[in-house]
Amino acid sequence: MVRKAINNNSLEVFPIDLRKFDAKSQVDDKAFGGLPGMVIKPDVVFKAVRSLPKNTHIILPQPWAKPLAQEDLNRFSKLENISIICGRYQGIDERVRILANEELSLGNFVLSGGEVFAMAIIEGVARLLPNVLSKTESLEEDSFNRWIGAPVFTRPAVFESMQVPEILLSGDHRRIKLWTLWQRIERTIKFRPNEVPIELSPIESSIVSAISRGESFESWLRNEGNKFLIARSAGLMPGKNPEEK
Amino acid sequence: MVRKAINNNSLEVFPIDLRKFDAKSQVDDKAFGGLPGMVIKPDVVFKAVRSLPKNTHIILPQPWAKPLAQEDLNRFSKLENISIICGRYQGIDERVRILANEELSLGNFVLSGGEVFAMAIIEGVARLLPNVLSKTESLEEDSFNRWIGAPVFTRPAVFESMQVPEILLSGDHRRIKLWTLWQRIERTIKFRPNEVPIELSPIESSIVSAISRGESFESWLRNEGNKFLIARSAGLMPGKNPEEK
Repeated sequence: MVRKAINNNSLEVFPIDLRKFDAKSQVDDKAFGGLPGMVIKPDVVFKAVRSLPKNTHIILPQPWAKPLAQEDLNRFSKLENISIICGRYQGIDERVRILANEELSLGNFVLSGGEVFAMAIIEGVARLLPNVLSKTESLEEDSFNRWIGAPVFTRPAVFESMQVPEILLSGDHRRIKLWTLWQRIERTIKFRPNEVPIELSPIESSIVSAISRGESFESWLRNEGNKFLIARSAGLMPGKNPEEK
Repeated sequence: MVRKAINNNSLEVFPIDLRKFDAKSQVDDKAFGGLPGMVIKPDVVFKAVRSLPKNTHIILPQPWAKPLAQEDLNRFSKLENISIICGRYQGIDERVRILANEELSLGNFVLSGGEVFAMAIIEGVARLLPNVLSKTESLEEDSFNRWIGAPVFTRPAVFESMQVPEILLSGDHRRIKLWTLWQRIERTIKFRPNEVPIELSPIESSIVSAISRGESFESWLRNEGNKFLIARSAGLMPGKNPEEK
């Protein structure tokens, strides 16, 4: 995906070696106060940052900062230029913090350097750039785009006596769409209850109620779901009419 | 760090190519139900997993699963063998889930594949293995080990009119220890208020109270902190006596 974005001219990635900003190629030095570990020197990072384009958005990884989230990647994908300062853990001279536009972590865990964090940002942003995902991998289907992803299956239809849900083999695309939406909503309620959207379309709201009553998809489809197949203008996605698809 | 762990014989990393488990080297196939995207085939993953040592702990990345956290890395670092199934996003055949001992995500964002997630686990685990961190980089100083890390500084003592805190230049190691603990506690209260430990040692509890009263380190040191310098048996870390250091 990253290669595709680069080949597309949608993305350029430049690693910058901090060593070239010190006459002796020395990027770190002992911590003051007899504290353990080596610390990246402030002058080297300041020089490196001053060599960057002026409009760049500077991200400083900090293990205690807010964890990276999809909204950050969406935001970064709209910026012209971002720079990530990859220090070794423990650490970078504290004075470097004033260079950063923001501090983020990869999550609530400690790694040795910022490289994996940088790769997560590069890969996460690359796939959001224009012309990178193929048409069939629409971002609309993404987890974290309103509802988390539906289960997916491929051949064989029966593998070690585990069957693909029959509806997926039915060829009935309108029912399959309803089933997929049901699965996504059900999975979101189960795994990410805090991320259930507040504003629901009529169909989403009908599914959420059915799931909270403990109804099965089949029973809901017979009782209520069918009306969404007939009243097509009700729309499967909020603000969207199925005829537009 | 990963190389060091490998050279040490503390860690081995084996990439396994899923293609070798299909006669035609074909790892994916169209999704059932006319859904978009290609899906990793179940038979290929089952064969690959069955080729692994029996005692391996299998992790399946799922964008909606619980985000990886330090306690997971600590847990993994004690296991003999772990395997990470790196599918392309969207996705792996749903039936593969029964192979997994657990499902995790790297965080609340979507990447294209599991590779960056696997690298985070490898790097995060490598540094926890015996003989990987040098003595000076004690894990005790880690962020997420009770309190997040203290700010660190290196030469020059004054850089572009930003000064290193004077105490770090004082050579008074006992006061520096108190200052460092104060900084860690202050930063935890500010950035990770929910992670302030419930059980506090006498000195931690004195610092937490002083910070919540808005007292400065210097004032606390004069009023209360000094007694911890004198009554050394009070201990700087819970259950630990400073003389042991």
